[in-house]
Amino acid sequence: MTAPGVPWDDRGLLLGDGLFETLRVDRGRPLELAAHLDRLDRGCDALGLPQLGPGRAAAEIARAVAAAGLAETAAAVRITWTSGSGGRGLDRPQPATPRLVCTAAPAPPPQGPAALVTVGVRRNEGSPASRLKTLAYLDNVLARAEARARGADEALMLNNRGDLACASAANLFWIVGDQLFTPAFECGVLDGTVRAIVLARAGEVGLRVHQVRADRSALAPAEAMFLTNSLIGLRPVSHLDGEALGAGSRLADLMAICKPALEPG
Amino acid sequence: MTAPGVPWDDRGLLLGDGLFETLRVDRGRPLELAAHLDRLDRGCDALGLPQLGPGRAAAEIARAVAAAGLAETAAAVRITWTSGSGGRGLDRPQPATPRLVCTAAPAPPPQGPAALVTVGVRRNEGSPASRLKTLAYLDNVLARAEARARGADEALMLNNRGDLACASAANLFWIVGDQLFTPAFECGVLDGTVRAIVLARAGEVGLRVHQVRADRSALAPAEAMFLTNSLIGLRPVSHLDGEALGAGSRLADLMAICKPALEPG
Repeated sequence: MTAPGVPWDDRGLLLGDGLFETLRVDRGRPLELAAHLDRLDRGCDALGLPQLGPGRAAAEIARAVAAAGLAETAAAVRITWTSGSGGRGLDRPQPATPRLVCTAAPAPPPQGPAALVTVGVRRNEGSPASRLKTLAYLDNVLARAEARARGADEALMLNNRGDLACASAANLFWIVGDQLFTPAFECGVLDGTVRAIVLARAGEVGLRVHQVRADRSALAPAEAMFLTNSLIGLRPVSHLDGEALGAGSRLADLMAICKPALEPG
Repeated sequence: MTAPGVPWDDRGLLLGDGLFETLRVDRGRPLELAAHLDRLDRGCDALGLPQLGPGRAAAEIARAVAAAGLAETAAAVRITWTSGSGGRGLDRPQPATPRLVCTAAPAPPPQGPAALVTVGVRRNEGSPASRLKTLAYLDNVLARAEARARGADEALMLNNRGDLACASAANLFWIVGDQLFTPAFECGVLDGTVRAIVLARAGEVGLRVHQVRADRSALAPAEAMFLTNSLIGLRPVSHLDGEALGAGSRLADLMAICKPALEPG
């Protein structure tokens, strides 16, 4: 909470030119830190920015957690890595000198199952940014606001082709029998750290995984749906566009085996 | 140049949740101010933000121009209107308390004709933000960078359907005979202030205007192309994907009648 501000000419502020990561830190221990930093590095490569580096990241996370008085509990840490200060216009100064802002807040309390509605705001499958965690997050803000205005907890976002993509701040999964589905990256989907854990471990509870391009009708036979991100872990979906969904024993099994990695506290 | 910074928890910085306007100010006189503020107001309505208001806008523009020592020359003024500070996550505090940053820089010098290349980054026609001037401008930054890397001045952006949309920081027009074409808003196009002037005045030089949904092949018969924005006015396109384009007498006529409104100095 003691992080400094940024100058008015920061390109993260002016243009959304930068990246971020949000991760859970339990009693000072960052969860899945390597996966978060790897994704940040890939974002830097895509945007043409220097990388943050693991040493500096670890030090800043520890500083932010301590400054917020959260070293003995569960914290949500955000790393913001902007492309730095620049002159007027779109062209970035070369070389770019990124700016780091790292802050910590109390981790959100566990949330109940989510009610989802399909929103009008589409995911931009035609931009590399749709596979990255960038500061240009307004479409997600608008999708969430639309969902809230319609009395739901989260948004189901399609892309411009009509493919299923994701929630406003989570990856999306659904279960049909012993098959587990999630939208493929080409649909405009973030490479979520919990998404990767679920895909890696689903076989242990007898689920076969499929990364697919599928439209809204593919959810009709879904017996269970859930959302994933670093702070909520796996969150079941209770309702989709007003229709109730079950949870299913396989989802409970999957949540049980993933829990130690996601909420060790 | 004396504008303050913004706090680390500004949602414009963290999420691209906000709007901006860039306008030309000639010897202290803002050009097309009403049109810019009207667009900003419409953006506020779409994002659910309070409006800036004309009195505060005029005062801040004057302050920024004076502070930059540009009261006797041509300035480029940027108004940044973020959704203000907020807690962690996508949900905006209610009511939102926007934050204003207004800065001035010397107006860019006149530029020669632009070489365009068609880039891979697509415009998101499925988001209302594609018709607004928002802080989530990273796709445009990526499009411009791709164009620069390929030796061009500007990007020709298509949307996900393959429709012609715009340049990275300008609207797009083309001329075939006595017909003037520009992509329709539904293609994911900003309601540009100079775009509106061109559409309103083209008839005076014998051009019939069409706002269209058209794919890349529609440019094959183009005799001339040009870009528009508040700082460059009308900028001819010299090359498209390596092929030379003419200028044409109608474009010269159009530039002549629009010039007094755009560069009175």
